Amino acid sequence: MVEKEIITSKDNRRIKDLRKLQTKKYRSRLNRFLIEGEHLVEEAVTHGQMVHTVILLEDYDHSSLDLKNIDLMFVSRDVMKSLSLLETPPGIMAVVTYNAPESTGNRVLLLDYVQDPGNLGTLIRTADAFGFSRVILSPDTVDVFSDKVLRSAQGSTFHIDIEIKEPTLAVGEFKGVVLGTALDNAQPLSDVETSDGPLMLVLGNEGRGISDVVLSKVDTRVKIEMSGQSESLNVGIAGGILMHHFKA
Amino acid sequence: MVEKEIITSKDNRRIKDLRKLQTKKYRSRLNRFLIEGEHLVEEAVTHGQMVHTVILLEDYDHSSLDLKNIDLMFVSRDVMKSLSLLETPPGIMAVVTYNAPESTGNRVLLLDYVQDPGNLGTLIRTADAFGFSRVILSPDTVDVFSDKVLRSAQGSTFHIDIEIKEPTLAVGEFKGVVLGTALDNAQPLSDVETSDGPLMLVLGNEGRGISDVVLSKVDTRVKIEMSGQSESLNVGIAGGILMHHFKA
Repeated sequence: MVEKEIITSKDNRRIKDLRKLQTKKYRSRLNRFLIEGEHLVEEAVTHGQMVHTVILLEDYDHSSLDLKNIDLMFVSRDVMKSLSLLETPPGIMAVVTYNAPESTGNRVLLLDYVQDPGNLGTLIRTADAFGFSRVILSPDTVDVFSDKVLRSAQGSTFHIDIEIKEPTLAVGEFKGVVLGTALDNAQPLSDVETSDGPLMLVLGNEGRGISDVVLSKVDTRVKIEMSGQSESLNVGIAGGILMHHFKA
Repeated sequence: MVEKEIITSKDNRRIKDLRKLQTKKYRSRLNRFLIEGEHLVEEAVTHGQMVHTVILLEDYDHSSLDLKNIDLMFVSRDVMKSLSLLETPPGIMAVVTYNAPESTGNRVLLLDYVQDPGNLGTLIRTADAFGFSRVILSPDTVDVFSDKVLRSAQGSTFHIDIEIKEPTLAVGEFKGVVLGTALDNAQPLSDVETSDGPLMLVLGNEGRGISDVVLSKVDTRVKIEMSGQSESLNVGIAGGILMHHFKA
């Protein structure tokens, strides 16, 4: 029986390299990112992601996961703690390169400069729930492979065809109806005709909404009617109501 | 002209007392809480809240706010930093006691053990948008007067009649239809008949949903149909879709 090797030093070269993935710069440069917790690792493994390494606490029971042919790295509690961004580190993490699944492109969500990680993660989770199987992000959107976004997406990241592209290009190329949220000159949601054809929904930044140049290119401006005193909806909530309304 | 006094020591007794309001224990004991930023202070002042003190950075321009008859406290940058829970402290904070506005009770949102501050704040903001003018919180729900909840509610806290009450009691007392979300034995949302009469919507905890004892008392179990691979919706999103559907 081969004794398993356990990395116990935070200064180990491989561990130092992995910690670099906590920054967007290295995630982009190396085209890989870290995920934490058994649920996300399971989703990555079962949804065709390129899982380079699974990092395990030395005594972690991974018997419920199928980790055949995957490089396993065992580490001490201290080392796990240095890699994790959670207050209570899970016993399992993984190094992943994103592999986009196929999408029909019949329902597309385009996000123009969404900044809050929780909002982006929730929007991806919601897109997954309502059949918006392609999500396009403007280059200035918060990093979709950061830990907070991955966590609030709860694995839906791996079910969705995610692309980063200039919004004006994405709108121009899309063959179908493009809807964007706006407060002025916008049709109430209940008046917008639904069709089964391809539909792109555009949502904008938390503070300023969709940028003017993008908004000028949408086919239909839509607004969600409100009856109370609130001035606006959170972008995740607006997206939830709209994707539910136009669900595939 | 009276020279204004500026508190420059973090160890000043009043400042030390105010810092205690960063904990739930003291917020409950003293029945007051801190708010940060001009938008929240303005909402509190204009919506009938009891504003005990407005705390201002010594050179803060508050000329756009009507702070007549309110105790003003001027502080140095260091002192403001010690009171603020934000990375970039705003120039203005206030000490407030919540004063519930009137509500017809025609649309009520009942939250059973919502734990995430962002979810609670967003749900209050959304309730405000769709005329759910009363929100009842189970006693184990995250503190509605904590800084993160107040921030994501964006001032809607002061537009809504918020009560803390045992959910079973609240459901029992309610004169109208009570709807709760459930995955099993639940009607699809599109099949639920809407009426203009009083309606209470019950949402549950992020992980386990509505507790069994509360769910056993609702009139109608409702579920939001999903078409993708996501297992569930974020509670804020589910609440958004449902409150939009049943809006006042």
